[in-house]
Amino acid sequence: MTMSFDHVTLGQRVVFGAGRGAENLAAEVARRGARRVMAIASSRERELAARVCGQVEVAVWFDDVVQHVPVATADAARAAAAEHGVDLLVSVGGGSTTGLAKAVALTTGIPVVAVPTTYAGSEATNVWGLTEDRTKTTGVDDRVLPAAVVYDAALTTSLPVGLSVASGLNALAHCVDSLWAPRADPINQALALEGVRALAVALPGIVAEPEGLTGREQALYGGYLAAVAFASAGSGLHHKICHVLGGTFDLPHAETHATVLPHVLAYNAPAVPALAGRLAAALGAPVGEGEDPVPAAVGALNRLYEALGAPSRLADYGLTAGDIPEAVDRIVKAAPPSNPVPVTEAAITALLTAALTGAAPTATLAH
Amino acid sequence: MTMSFDHVTLGQRVVFGAGRGAENLAAEVARRGARRVMAIASSRERELAARVCGQVEVAVWFDDVVQHVPVATADAARAAAAEHGVDLLVSVGGGSTTGLAKAVALTTGIPVVAVPTTYAGSEATNVWGLTEDRTKTTGVDDRVLPAAVVYDAALTTSLPVGLSVASGLNALAHCVDSLWAPRADPINQALALEGVRALAVALPGIVAEPEGLTGREQALYGGYLAAVAFASAGSGLHHKICHVLGGTFDLPHAETHATVLPHVLAYNAPAVPALAGRLAAALGAPVGEGEDPVPAAVGALNRLYEALGAPSRLADYGLTAGDIPEAVDRIVKAAPPSNPVPVTEAAITALLTAALTGAAPTATLAH
Repeated sequence: MTMSFDHVTLGQRVVFGAGRGAENLAAEVARRGARRVMAIASSRERELAARVCGQVEVAVWFDDVVQHVPVATADAARAAAAEHGVDLLVSVGGGSTTGLAKAVALTTGIPVVAVPTTYAGSEATNVWGLTEDRTKTTGVDDRVLPAAVVYDAALTTSLPVGLSVASGLNALAHCVDSLWAPRADPINQALALEGVRALAVALPGIVAEPEGLTGREQALYGGYLAAVAFASAGSGLHHKICHVLGGTFDLPHAETHATVLPHVLAYNAPAVPALAGRLAAALGAPVGEGEDPVPAAVGALNRLYEALGAPSRLADYGLTAGDIPEAVDRIVKAAPPSNPVPVTEAAITALLTAALTGAAPTATLAH
Repeated sequence: MTMSFDHVTLGQRVVFGAGRGAENLAAEVARRGARRVMAIASSRERELAARVCGQVEVAVWFDDVVQHVPVATADAARAAAAEHGVDLLVSVGGGSTTGLAKAVALTTGIPVVAVPTTYAGSEATNVWGLTEDRTKTTGVDDRVLPAAVVYDAALTTSLPVGLSVASGLNALAHCVDSLWAPRADPINQALALEGVRALAVALPGIVAEPEGLTGREQALYGGYLAAVAFASAGSGLHHKICHVLGGTFDLPHAETHATVLPHVLAYNAPAVPALAGRLAAALGAPVGEGEDPVPAAVGALNRLYEALGAPSRLADYGLTAGDIPEAVDRIVKAAPPSNPVPVTEAAITALLTAALTGAAPTATLAH
């Protein structure tokens, strides 16, 4: 069987070094010959950012970081950049901070060097988002892709364990859903599986030793790969389900993602046994000869979830059995036609019912 | 243990589609809005190139393709591009053809769309090479990286099986050597292992069915990943050894690479058991629980070599026992200091002696 795909690799420099963020950032700024740096960091992270920027001459600080990047905030940041003749944006923070730098880059073309402090992954994509009148607009533009990313696990040790696990499971969902997303191809699948490998080590590591750098760094690395794979492969069935549950029923983002993923894996895996085998191996449970890779992958994910005490019941977050018909209707309409298993009302009803009550995801679900 | 690395991802679009090269190339030319295309193809491949370019308006053809890209040839191609107001270079051919397009891009900045007809991989790197007075100069410049690559396995079915295997084993060597090369990092290691996975399927496939597209396409894909990984990770011990054997003793390139690789693997693997385990899995021989990954990897490579009837004795290509001391001296001086096992005279003597006579590579060699 031959392959047919069109894969765009985004050009970017990524630098890893735990405890070396300040020197690596300074080297990157020098390497780019930047003279007028605008540093973007929320006031809450200003102290952390000041340390990271300690070896960089900052022309102007911008700290009015707001979730979902309101247009007014973006305009203020753009005006500050223009006023100060800024030639490089340095963002230090999570997704909202990176997002603000991207919004400035979108209209000005000023390059961004991102220093992430969470596992959100926005730093590795060319996707931007802006909010106006409670409406979020997103788009894709290569100008917003940070030219370089400086990863320093020491900047993330203050992220609480619960939040770290939630953020890490969100990244894991990006990886797994990439395997069968609309633009899935062998390249982004390989990167997604490498992301799984890193996250399966990272998250138990963070739980065992929250201050340790190894788990934190693997989580940053896995989050980076998750973003690369997801940006390339697009939204699969898992993300369409979570989008409906979040948008229509106001369920919390991280918990919903965490709860739904094993059920989607159990649903799709039988149609992609080779990928399931590679997923199981990436989760640390290589499939023995003659062993069925589908339950192996489902079981490996379930064991990781148990080890992390991950959420397992949508009922805990407000979904009711009465909501299921509307959710099913919306999900069936939104599901990618390329999903490896046809997305039927009966199947999604069974899937959501299991996720609602915390029934074990099984590989034979609705098949 | 934390990681410390600086990884540059080169931005590029790659399009795969067996038998669809002509339409995919036309779509790419249209997408870029190019109006004055110069097509570069050797006169030997002119007919093939004319078919691939069948849906593209070609302003000028250039067919004076010479191995190693002589400066005079590059100058002639540059002059032709200037004379015809060319805004896009389309290369159809192997490494020398891609190399000529890169030479034009180097001085003119005109973008390149490459259509490879071998597994050489030059299309995926930012490395250029030019020859003048029998001296080859190479360099790295992002301007020579093709903006897009159109892969069509149907264009490679005329490549003889022997040449295909040699070229494929060269790509495999790039992948394996990337695992411990000076700039090896988790990202280029993951891509290298994916390349191994593809090549381990591809080469027996080509031998079994030379006209079949599946094996050919996997070889193109593996060759692409080999080039990406190698350009990122740099030359490891294997390539330094082959460089000395080729440069000083005039041994043939492909056969030397093929013969030396298993010995370098056997030498280095004990120092990188986790990578050896992943390599074994990529070669189709996943390591069982409690099994030693080092002999597993070495054995898996040996079995692939046997299946392909790969060359195994440097003596067959002109090396003599008397050459070994000089070779050892040069190799020890050229070896990367970062090689996972120290490179001693005694060890390289043992390695070359084994490769000379076709002794089985073993994982305990000289340790």
